[in-house]
Amino acid sequence: MSSSFGHIFRISTWGESHGKGVGVVIDGCPSLVPITQEIIQRELDRRRPGQSSIVTPRNENDEAVILSGVLDGQTLGTPIAINIMNKDHQSSAYDEMAVTYRPSHADYTYDAKYGIRAWAGGGRSSARETIGRVAAGAVAKAVMLQAFPEMEVVAWVSSIHDIQAKTDWTEATADVIESNIVRTADASVVDAMITAIEAAKTAGNSLGGVVQCVVRNCPPGLGDPVFDKLDATLAHALMSIPATKAFAVGSGFDAAMMMGSEHNDAFYMDGDRVRTKTNRSGGIQGGISNGEDILIKLGFKPTATLMLDQETVNQSGEDTTLKGKGRHDACVLPRAVPIVEAMVWLTLCDHYLRQRCQRS
Amino acid sequence: MSSSFGHIFRISTWGESHGKGVGVVIDGCPSLVPITQEIIQRELDRRRPGQSSIVTPRNENDEAVILSGVLDGQTLGTPIAINIMNKDHQSSAYDEMAVTYRPSHADYTYDAKYGIRAWAGGGRSSARETIGRVAAGAVAKAVMLQAFPEMEVVAWVSSIHDIQAKTDWTEATADVIESNIVRTADASVVDAMITAIEAAKTAGNSLGGVVQCVVRNCPPGLGDPVFDKLDATLAHALMSIPATKAFAVGSGFDAAMMMGSEHNDAFYMDGDRVRTKTNRSGGIQGGISNGEDILIKLGFKPTATLMLDQETVNQSGEDTTLKGKGRHDACVLPRAVPIVEAMVWLTLCDHYLRQRCQRS
Amino acid sequence: MSSSFGHIFRISTWGESHGKGVGVVIDGCPSLVPITQEIIQRELDRRRPGQSSIVTPRNENDEAVILSGVLDGQTLGTPIAINIMNKDHQSSAYDEMAVTYRPSHADYTYDAKYGIRAWAGGGRSSARETIGRVAAGAVAKAVMLQAFPEMEVVAWVSSIHDIQAKTDWTEATADVIESNIVRTADASVVDAMITAIEAAKTAGNSLGGVVQCVVRNCPPGLGDPVFDKLDATLAHALMSIPATKAFAVGSGFDAAMMMGSEHNDAFYMDGDRVRTKTNRSGGIQGGISNGEDILIKLGFKPTATLMLDQETVNQSGEDTTLKGKGRHDACVLPRAVPIVEAMVWLTLCDHYLRQRCQRS
Amino acid sequence: MSSSFGHIFRISTWGESHGKGVGVVIDGCPSLVPITQEIIQRELDRRRPGQSSIVTPRNENDEAVILSGVLDGQTLGTPIAINIMNKDHQSSAYDEMAVTYRPSHADYTYDAKYGIRAWAGGGRSSARETIGRVAAGAVAKAVMLQAFPEMEVVAWVSSIHDIQAKTDWTEATADVIESNIVRTADASVVDAMITAIEAAKTAGNSLGGVVQCVVRNCPPGLGDPVFDKLDATLAHALMSIPATKAFAVGSGFDAAMMMGSEHNDAFYMDGDRVRTKTNRSGGIQGGISNGEDILIKLGFKPTATLMLDQETVNQSGEDTTLKGKGRHDACVLPRAVPIVEAMVWLTLCDHYLRQRCQRS
Repeated sequence: MSSSFGHIFRISTWGESHGKGVGVVIDGCPSLVPITQEIIQRELDRRRPGQSSIVTPRNENDEAVILSGVLDGQTLGTPIAINIMNKDHQSSAYDEMAVTYRPSHADYTYDAKYGIRAWAGGGRSSARETIGRVAAGAVAKAVMLQAFPEMEVVAWVSSIHDIQAKTDWTEATADVIESNIVRTADASVVDAMITAIEAAKTAGNSLGGVVQCVVRNCPPGLGDPVFDKLDATLAHALMSIPATKAFAVGSGFDAAMMMGSEHNDAFYMDGDRVRTKTNRSGGIQGGISNGEDILIKLGFKPTATLMLDQETVNQSGEDTTLKGKGRHDACVLPRAVPIVEAMVWLTLCDHYLRQRCQRS
Repeated sequence: MSSSFGHIFRISTWGESHGKGVGVVIDGCPSLVPITQEIIQRELDRRRPGQSSIVTPRNENDEAVILSGVLDGQTLGTPIAINIMNKDHQSSAYDEMAVTYRPSHADYTYDAKYGIRAWAGGGRSSARETIGRVAAGAVAKAVMLQAFPEMEVVAWVSSIHDIQAKTDWTEATADVIESNIVRTADASVVDAMITAIEAAKTAGNSLGGVVQCVVRNCPPGLGDPVFDKLDATLAHALMSIPATKAFAVGSGFDAAMMMGSEHNDAFYMDGDRVRTKTNRSGGIQGGISNGEDILIKLGFKPTATLMLDQETVNQSGEDTTLKGKGRHDACVLPRAVPIVEAMVWLTLCDHYLRQRCQRS
Repeated sequence: MSSSFGHIFRISTWGESHGKGVGVVIDGCPSLVPITQEIIQRELDRRRPGQSSIVTPRNENDEAVILSGVLDGQTLGTPIAINIMNKDHQSSAYDEMAVTYRPSHADYTYDAKYGIRAWAGGGRSSARETIGRVAAGAVAKAVMLQAFPEMEVVAWVSSIHDIQAKTDWTEATADVIESNIVRTADASVVDAMITAIEAAKTAGNSLGGVVQCVVRNCPPGLGDPVFDKLDATLAHALMSIPATKAFAVGSGFDAAMMMGSEHNDAFYMDGDRVRTKTNRSGGIQGGISNGEDILIKLGFKPTATLMLDQETVNQSGEDTTLKGKGRHDACVLPRAVPIVEAMVWLTLCDHYLRQRCQRS
Repeated sequence: MSSSFGHIFRISTWGESHGKGVGVVIDGCPSLVPITQEIIQRELDRRRPGQSSIVTPRNENDEAVILSGVLDGQTLGTPIAINIMNKDHQSSAYDEMAVTYRPSHADYTYDAKYGIRAWAGGGRSSARETIGRVAAGAVAKAVMLQAFPEMEVVAWVSSIHDIQAKTDWTEATADVIESNIVRTADASVVDAMITAIEAAKTAGNSLGGVVQCVVRNCPPGLGDPVFDKLDATLAHALMSIPATKAFAVGSGFDAAMMMGSEHNDAFYMDGDRVRTKTNRSGGIQGGISNGEDILIKLGFKPTATLMLDQETVNQSGEDTTLKGKGRHDACVLPRAVPIVEAMVWLTLCDHYLRQRCQRS
């Protein structure tokens, strides 16, 4: 039951990093939604390794093939299976990891849980698993855009280590973000971010950072109190992305330092639409969208695999040291942007379909 | 589907604030677990209004009655229904809210979602709903303590507005926390916190804050990659608590400012047990517990209901102002502590039972 | 996970026969559906013991109380909790069953599964559990009638032991069925059926029989291939009713003796509606309703509890004999009719809401 | 949500008959279970077209490829994806069905439900979908045999049209069944059954029949009251197989004609094991296995596609006639046998893993 997400628009991903491939099956997608392999591929290309000088040089072109559920560019309402076969394996780089646990990686815990582990390339714990999410996210996006053509989910790298983008929630545009290889919304910090990543890479080290995401033109009424509040399911979705350590909506942890009179968002009428003057709620009140922009922050830790000697233990229970091999991102954030967007689309799409049940 | 949580140990809560009562049905609880009404009541008493001078003076004694699933102090394996009837209604204090939306509350969004709303006392969006969670959490705790007698979930108020507790994760004890009405782990800040809450109350205002929670002696192997990572499901569980705005595990947002060499937790052997020298992972790696303490932070916004004039709109689509009435907490955090613990026990218990499927 | 049914319109029942009560929580019911306690009570009164001379004389008036989810006669969209408290216990009649297993009852298997058992009155395995189903079925029916006012689910006793009703699927009417205490659709066999039941009762014996059920004016398009075909989920729903041994849709087992040319239902146009000339499909093709009457047969075994000496064993692993005590139905079928209808409404309602997701 | 089955051992099938392929993803399989492609292929070969003179001559060798979740012959505990690519398409034979509805097929209802339909080869409603079930069933069987090496699920064709096998539940053996192309347990009726099928085929007609299935050495305690009784979930599983019209457990519809004193199964001690002298319960009491043989009957209608003129309508709403083309089974039962067994293994495996949660 580990690998499925969503209650109505339900995805199941599968695949190990150095196995035969990875993929996803989408069950519960409405029929008659326009979708093509090209639309899916466009999102995968934003996620794939080797796309720029600051990401891992592994050459994985990650070609999506739709095997079912789509006919002549339209969904059939039956499960959509999408496969991406693996190609560029260099398992030998991982030989040592077959017996030695990488610090702050999933090697030890997988062994503790399953008693067996596909060690090559990180196996199931590899970020390669997220390919299925991005492919399914492209389908969820198509469902939502059919119903709400103005809707937009825009994520960007808002900080890397100590370099902060200054762009405001309302200013961030996909055009700027996609115009630079770091995927930040603030053109003025692009060079500094690239320099920082390259320096970390040269040093065999790695960097953390923050991704922000805004949802624009979301209809009010999405989100299911009590347990499946929109913010709670977004937290679930986004904290399931590898390397995440913190999630915030609207005012986030800053809310803790505020008084009610500072935090509350006053309502006002904008024509016949109910609006709020401020947006500390981050577009969600009582777990339900209120029509304002949904504002999310997601904190990522630095990549665990380092090209430096680290103290660790092996499967035989001995203390030892390990130095990373293989080809890794010194900073995962630029490639995390499309994954964040995918998980947000998947969450919103599931809530939208739930709401179709709730009110006809 | 809005009101259930858990895949195997599955709870369903019900009830509106000023309806006939609230309650919970637990399905999937193992048989032969010792539980009594008294064990459940003890947790509810920590959550109930009127327990001290700094919480709402509503006199709700919240008496839990087990209606099914327990025989002679042991679970039967069949559903456990627990009811708590409502008593102390003062719906008249809410008359105005029947037609006017409280800023940053769930009034407007419930109307947007359902087209109808139990306005009295906040209806389903009231924190009264969490009674069912706390009752069910007591049962989850009993399941876990039967299997892991040394296990401990300890939460406390680590900040209120700008007052910070200094207590470390390893130092916090239930004894200190329960000895003061703010439920903080640092005795030296108790008076300052109480003063701050009372000042806010007098001013008709409210305060936010942070709750920290540590899980001790959790077995390794809990948590289900990919989507139901332990940290992702904890985020889901905890962000479903009313008034939460941010969630962090281990290093949290601080991870974004660190390099891999600073962040990684080195492994070492402690006898035949694999341990980490530091704990920036917060006890979870690759979504699975590693046996170290699980470290969680949860940010709460200030209570939305204020005894101050606020700009808002009414159901007829007119701009207006609203001043809160009724009896409310000026700061929800002291009463949030048992709710946080309950959600953590519920999450862990579900993962423990999942792991019993995974490996016999 | 044992006690929930439905994917979107999801019910969870709870309660043991001689515990404090029984009940149901409905999660996922749309808002703004008209429902009252009286509508629910009407269905419960058709199920309750003591309603006529041929059913168990236990005096359980089974009063339903709606505790949540309904305001001023309309659903809120939040969980609907319905409780029915227990009253007329005579646990002493069951003392012997605390240690001795009733043949063909659930006593032994509950012990084998749970290692504990609420033996009084059959505990959770008692047909008293079906009260929650009937209450929830009344709500499901209200949802469906709001959307499809012409829809009808009509069940009746079509045979008891060797006495067969002659009424055809198209002729059965609720008026005739409810006018006689056996709830058969054929007035000419009522007396024979009553005589047979009374004779069995006098002899301390019991009788099996068949219930038929027709759904009229069901919209086409309900049912979810592949696994959740409408007939498969109806089979699941109906075979979960205590004492059922067989299920058939349309031609049922007779289909096995037919050739394709005899079995196929020819299509024809009736105005702009696609109809079939015959209905061996029983209103379902490929797991999806086709708009024709849905035709179901359900076989019930005779009541297991007999007022006769029977060979059995006890919990200590000794051979022994047991003679039933307490007050039981010599034939469960008359009271099974509203339970069958309830399970059919619940199944159809869940599929209808699923279809609202599938196509807007 | 249409294409998943199981709560813990959860399978999701995908694929249309004339699409790129079909397959299954299994989520929730325990780790360290021995499985290979060969074990899966063996079951698929029993299901595949073209295996004998009495089944469809379509040459589909249906080669299973495990893409994930298995390493060196052992399950990893992560999702197992199995793909079977399509090869032998003759979509042209289906051209007419693109616009004309085949009587008693799923063409019309798919259009009614989805507003679109993969018409070639029946699309998603084709029995080709069951390949994924058979592949997953082989894995479920491996899980069960690891835990219960003596366990056996044996299905056979017990009747075709009016030809009845005489073999008793206790006598049926896999050896006899697999030694004849009809897959009946009674060698004396093999020739008659073959002759009947060939005659129907020559006439362009088709035949129905009955499959029986026995589960031997099932442990007591499997099955989850209330709604997920073992018999109810078996009914769900088996009635989801295309062309089924009726399901029976133990005494089945015969129970309706019996008195309690005839039907009840007396308990007795067999050493320290509780046994029943007769088995009208069919191995299940109160929805839970009692350790006796589980006895199931499943009624199949004759294949809907006939090589005869049939009255029908087309998508434009006109009356018309249709004569089948393509290559079809005149009787699906011989190939249904491994599908029945697969669904039974899948159901039992899910209940076994549920029981591991229930009692450690």
